[in-house]
Formats: sequence, C-alpha cells, structure tokens
Amino acid sequence: MIRIVEVGPRDGLQNEAKAIPTEVKLTFIHALAACGLREIEATSFVSPKWVPQLADAEELWPRLGTGALYSALVPNARGLERALACGVRRIAVFTAASEAFTQANIRMSIDESLAVFAEVVEGFRAASGGEGFVRGYISTAFECPYSGRVEASAVMQVARRLLELGVDEISVGDTIGVAGPSEVRELGKALLLEIPAAKVAWHFHDTNGTAIANVAEALRHGFSSFDSSAGGLGGCPYAPGAGGNLATEDLVYFLHREGLPTGVDLDRLALASRPISAILGRLAQPKSAAAALSRLDASHSK
Amino acid sequence: MIRIVEVGPRDGLQNEAKAIPTEVKLTFIHALAACGLREIEATSFVSPKWVPQLADAEELWPRLGTGALYSALVPNARGLERALACGVRRIAVFTAASEAFTQANIRMSIDESLAVFAEVVEGFRAASGGEGFVRGYISTAFECPYSGRVEASAVMQVARRLLELGVDEISVGDTIGVAGPSEVRELGKALLLEIPAAKVAWHFHDTNGTAIANVAEALRHGFSSFDSSAGGLGGCPYAPGAGGNLATEDLVYFLHREGLPTGVDLDRLALASRPISAILGRLAQPKSAAAALSRLDASHSK
Repeated sequence: MIRIVEVGPRDGLQNEAKAIPTEVKLTFIHALAACGLREIEATSFVSPKWVPQLADAEELWPRLGTGALYSALVPNARGLERALACGVRRIAVFTAASEAFTQANIRMSIDESLAVFAEVVEGFRAASGGEGFVRGYISTAFECPYSGRVEASAVMQVARRLLELGVDEISVGDTIGVAGPSEVRELGKALLLEIPAAKVAWHFHDTNGTAIANVAEALRHGFSSFDSSAGGLGGCPYAPGAGGNLATEDLVYFLHREGLPTGVDLDRLALASRPISAILGRLAQPKSAAAALSRLDASHSK
Repeated sequence: MIRIVEVGPRDGLQNEAKAIPTEVKLTFIHALAACGLREIEATSFVSPKWVPQLADAEELWPRLGTGALYSALVPNARGLERALACGVRRIAVFTAASEAFTQANIRMSIDESLAVFAEVVEGFRAASGGEGFVRGYISTAFECPYSGRVEASAVMQVARRLLELGVDEISVGDTIGVAGPSEVRELGKALLLEIPAAKVAWHFHDTNGTAIANVAEALRHGFSSFDSSAGGLGGCPYAPGAGGNLATEDLVYFLHREGLPTGVDLDRLALASRPISAILGRLAQPKSAAAALSRLDASHSK
C-alpha cells in the first residue's frame, strides 16, 4: 500500500496570513482522519513568535485523539521540550539541501541545523525509550529560490547526515515546485544507491503542474511514500490556478486510477478541505476535488 | 522536436456560453502564433446552428495569415464545401471510440460518422490535388461519460478505419480527463503494434490533474505529438480549479524542464491567453501560467 503523509494542517497552514481557530483545525484534522488518512503532521512546536499560525500546538495536541498517527515538527530543543510535555511520539526536523535557503528559512547553516537536530533526536529517543518516529525534511532538493539548481550530491550529503543522526525516514522536497520527472529519476537513483526506498518520502509541490508526473516517476523506482496537503493548502494559494503543495485529492485520484489503493475516500476528502479553504479565501481548489464535487453535485441533483 | 497542436481557438471556445468577437479571436490566435506555436486549430466549419460560437469561420479564416499552420474541423460535406471555399489546406474530422458518445455528440453512429468522413476526405484530397493534411480525432479513447470504460480494441477499430480513409494522423483523446499513465501505456502499446508513433497525437484533458503524467508516459513510448489548449480553455472551466483541456502552458513548462525544446515562449504564452480568459470569466488559470505571471510580476517590481 502506498503511504500518504498528510501535511496540510502543518505545512498548509504555517504561512497563511489568517490564523485558523483551534476548533476549526481540529474539525479539519478529524475530517482528514475520517477520510482514511493514516499519517497526519498536525502542527509544529516552533516558536509562536516565528509561526503564530501554529501557536496553539499545546492546545491542539491533546485533543487530536487516536484516529491517525499524528506527528509534529520540532525545530529545536525548546520545541522538543514542548512536544515531549504533550506526549508527542512522532516528530519531524527540517533542513534543506541549499545553504542559502536554510539561512533564509531557519536562520542557520545546514551544519548548524544538523547540530541542533542531533540534540533533538537524541533527546527524543532518550525520552521515548528508544521508541518513536523521526522524519527529517530535506527541502529545496532540486532548486533553491536564491541559489538555483541543487545537485543530487548536495542532497545526498544532508541525507547521509540525517540518517547518521538516526532519523527513520527522510522527506525530499521540491519546495518551489519546479522539478520534472527526469530530475526525480536522477535524484531517486542517487538516493537508492545508499538508502532503501522505504526510508524515503517525496514532498512535491505542484507550482507548475508537474507533481503527479513526479509521483509517477518515483513510483517507477520503487518509492512508495508521498507527502501531500488536503485542498492543496500551502505554497502560494492566492491566485486562481496557482499551485502550492501537491493536493492530497490529486494524489489519491491518481493512485486509485493507477490501481494503487490508499484507503482514502476521495469524495469525503474533497468535502473535508472545503470549509478551511473557504476561511482562507483560497481561490484555487485541486482539480480532482473540483471534479469530485461536480460529480457529487450531479448525483445529488438526479 | 516535440509537436504541439494548439486547439484552444476551436476546442477551447466551442462550448463557451459567451460568443467571442472575431477581432478578439484573431488577436488571440495571432498572439499564440507569435509565442511560437506552429500548428493551431483555428476554427470549425460546423453548422452555426450547432456551434454558434464558431459561426464566424468564413470571416476569421482569410484573416489568419501565415504565422502558423492553421487547420479547421470539418464535420461533413457541407462543412468541407465551406472550408474549401476558404482555401483551408489542413482539416480535422471528429469521431469517438464510444458509440454512446458519438450518438450524443454528433448524432451519428461511429459507422455513419466514418462514412461521412470518407466522403469528406475524398473530396478534400480531390480538391487539394492529393495535398493537404487530414487529422482524425478519436475521442473518449479511455472512458465514455455515458457507457464507462472503453477498451483499447475499440480505439484500434476506429483508428484502423480512419487510416484506411487516408487520414495523416489520428488524435487520441481522453475527453473527460480521467485516464492515468497505466492506461496510456496500454493503449499506446496497442497503437504502436499497427501505427507509427509519428501518426499519433494525444489529446489529454486535465480534469483530474493526470494530463502531464500521461504526456510523460506517452513520451516514454516514443510519441511526440500533443494537443493542448492555451489557458486550459475548454472542458469545464467554470469552477476555480476545475480542469478541462490540458493547458498549453503546463505542457510547455513540463517539456522545457525535461529538456525537450518546443520553440514556444512560455512567458509570452502566459500573457497571451489572459485577455480571452478574462472575457470568458474563466476563473482557473493553468498552474504554470500563474507561476510565470507571478515571476514576471516579481521581476517587474524589482
């Protein structure tokens, strides 16, 4: 079975101008779990100063329940302290393959970020008795908005060091949504020389409409874990048609049509992201969500 | 070089509720040619009673000029008469792989449509001294909105008969935009058993976001001709996010990123379809057009 890691509640909401009330987030997250999404990155224990949108992590976490495997982003020791106090058992750390992006995004060098994560991962393992799950994000794995093309060798360097720190998987991101399948093939092959496919997730953005073709290419090389965001939340959702994160709806449609089960109910999913998209004034909706909703409307009006 | 057949001015406008003034069409078509699109299906000599949106074919055609290879859809003997009077040298005929769709769409059986086309193709060849170019559309090649899945064998039957009639190429359409790459692979392989790749174009719709992945799959099997519509015009453009025809912008972005030249200027193309999309009140724009326009805005504001 293909593994989908739903990142909408964290990655989708962290850059929104509008703060979403905790109740609305909970309704959204529970709806996603009810659709059959098994892994959901629910929030981040980042400083509320940097990401006020996710300042309610402590309020949100205890109310998530057990409908899915919930995880949280943990940027540093302070974040770990907060996460552990909440009983978080699945965490993610976040760095990039580009120095320029890492500096701009988290105000550290890649080396500094890895030193911070070493401490976070060690502390997390100690507190969870060696248990728990750690994901390491490697963003700008193809191209950096500041410094251009990123070599596969740069990604491999960061991937190796994350795995040395003991992360359970890496999530390799096309943060600005520019890559095509040839680039996925090249990086995928480099990854597979050293890392089992089961330890790699792909995090595509659909900024230029290539995300599904990239998923198809990754599947071809034996990868089976993909990040996506319900409603396509995150990225740059303010212009009609503009794409950010790969939409979970489009991913699910594609996988089902290819005969790959996901356990996700696409029609329910198309409905699930609607209220929060409306609150965010998000003009674009995923293509397959628009198609599913139009099918649902047609069958209701019969 | 990959061949793009731009179908926006015909396929994109034929179902629009709003009629577009001839002057606006001409500006649009000339802008498309100026972007580097070499083949443009400009209009249809269909009865104005059925498709009033294209009733200005006679007025439009002589003003197209020579900036691209222009073609026109010709549904029957009457249409051929009108096209020949205009000096049209590239025509297209239109049938489907599904009986139910053919009946609903052109009020004929597949057999009846092929009998009509035999007459059209013969008349066209005679009038053009054996010269000229004929394309045969096979729509609903994967699934019919009325009768469900369509077998590759049904497509092959129609393809064979079109080639027997002497068409120069067939254009195989996923009319409702549901297929995934596995289906393209299966049909592509069946086609290649009997027909050279150079005689096949693919006409994908992006209703569910799979069109680019389908193009990638077709390329893998040696196909190199694709239909697309500037601005994603056509199909079902009235809901934000809803996809119709594969957008030329998304196709060009993908091909360029894959290192396949098209001769098309993507930034100019993103601008070219804007005025007509605005007139049509089309809410969605292609992802790569939104991305290109946002890049252009950013560079202008520097």
